[in-house]
Amino acid sequence: MVMPAALLESSLDKRISLLLKDGRSLEGKLTGFDEYMNMVLDDTMETGAEGSDDRRLGKVVLRGSNVVSIAIL
Amino acid sequence: MVMPAALLESSLDKRISLLLKDGRSLEGKLTGFDEYMNMVLDDTMETGAEGSDDRRLGKVVLRGSNVVSIAIL
Amino acid sequence: MVMPAALLESSLDKRISLLLKDGRSLEGKLTGFDEYMNMVLDDTMETGAEGSDDRRLGKVVLRGSNVVSIAIL
Amino acid sequence: MVMPAALLESSLDKRISLLLKDGRSLEGKLTGFDEYMNMVLDDTMETGAEGSDDRRLGKVVLRGSNVVSIAIL
Amino acid sequence: MVMPAALLESSLDKRISLLLKDGRSLEGKLTGFDEYMNMVLDDTMETGAEGSDDRRLGKVVLRGSNVVSIAIL
Amino acid sequence: MVMPAALLESSLDKRISLLLKDGRSLEGKLTGFDEYMNMVLDDTMETGAEGSDDRRLGKVVLRGSNVVSIAIL
Amino acid sequence: MVMPAALLESSLDKRISLLLKDGRSLEGKLTGFDEYMNMVLDDTMETGAEGSDDRRLGKVVLRGSNVVSIAIL
Repeated sequence: MVMPAALLESSLDKRISLLLKDGRSLEGKLTGFDEYMNMVLDDTMETGAEGSDDRRLGKVVLRGSNVVSIAIL
Repeated sequence: MVMPAALLESSLDKRISLLLKDGRSLEGKLTGFDEYMNMVLDDTMETGAEGSDDRRLGKVVLRGSNVVSIAIL
Repeated sequence: MVMPAALLESSLDKRISLLLKDGRSLEGKLTGFDEYMNMVLDDTMETGAEGSDDRRLGKVVLRGSNVVSIAIL
Repeated sequence: MVMPAALLESSLDKRISLLLKDGRSLEGKLTGFDEYMNMVLDDTMETGAEGSDDRRLGKVVLRGSNVVSIAIL
Repeated sequence: MVMPAALLESSLDKRISLLLKDGRSLEGKLTGFDEYMNMVLDDTMETGAEGSDDRRLGKVVLRGSNVVSIAIL
Repeated sequence: MVMPAALLESSLDKRISLLLKDGRSLEGKLTGFDEYMNMVLDDTMETGAEGSDDRRLGKVVLRGSNVVSIAIL
Repeated sequence: MVMPAALLESSLDKRISLLLKDGRSLEGKLTGFDEYMNMVLDDTMETGAEGSDDRRLGKVVLRGSNVVSIAIL
């Protein structure tokens, strides 16, 4: 069995793609997380609704409560 | 009586289909979960609104708080 | 006084009808539940918005936080 | 001072009217409740949006988290 | 400093006006409340959207989680 | 480091402006708050959507869970 | 591993950009935060929907539960 927190731990320094509750997607390098699945991402890019431009966000703290799913790239 | 967590445990390495709060459906192989029903899926496919194309997501962590229902395939 | 959990316990192996927050209705045989009112249903049928077709879902885990009401059939 | 739980206790076996978060109203005989204000109703009738028909639901468990207000009839 | 619970305590048997999350307003005599700000109101009147008629609700239990603000009249 | 609760404490008897989740703005004199950021305001004015008239609300208890941001005036 | 709270701590007195659940963006100097990620910002500017004017908010307390993401500028 792979615990969700263990998968995140083994994904440190890898790029992940996040889907947020508001429909936005973020992609960045996972550099940390806590027990609430708050996460720290480096070199973060935001992709909004289709057709809209991407935005560089750099170093970002994400609230775990707004995260729907995390894909390991 | 079948406890929900016991059913998930017995479904490890089986394919499951998830309905999320935002209307999306995911299908993948359940490889782990925790006490908050956060789940780890392998070979995950996303199916959005009707008629839209499926997306391969690969290895995914899903926040339990966004899950509505889990069907064992 | 009939405690809600006691009514669920006495409804094990009976068919129940669930209304979810997203407006969907599920009907199935209750085979288990936990302290968060997460439930396990067998032979589950989903009924969506009026006029749409029903869907067989089989064995399902339902998150209690998405349940509005449970009718004992 | 009348504690909310004490009022519910003194309303056992009386008919109550419930307004839910999704706008539906339920009326039934209160036969039990727990610390989360989950409730058990007997002879429950649902009244939806104006002009729509009522539905008999019989014996129902209601999740307290979906209840807005409870009127004692 | 006036703690919120102390203000409610000193408002017992006074009329209060409540704004709920769903936009409805209730006015009634506060006869009790608990630690979750669940409240008991007597002689409750509901005022919906502008122009709609008021409704007498009588004795009501209100879930604190649906309350936005409480004005002491 | 200025803890949020310490800033509120030092703002007692000052006027603050609150933005609520439902888009309304309230302005009033902060006379108390608790650990959930429930607040007591005096001489409260409500400002709704643009162009709508302001409303005097007087003494008000505000649920912290509906507050988005608090500006110290 | 960079814990989210540690990143916030190292960002004290730096300017951060916040995205809120209601779509608004705030930019200000982070002067404090607590365990719920409630934050204190100085010299705060609000940027609403595209094309709308910015608003100076000055010293602000932000509820962590409304924050989606925090970018370190």
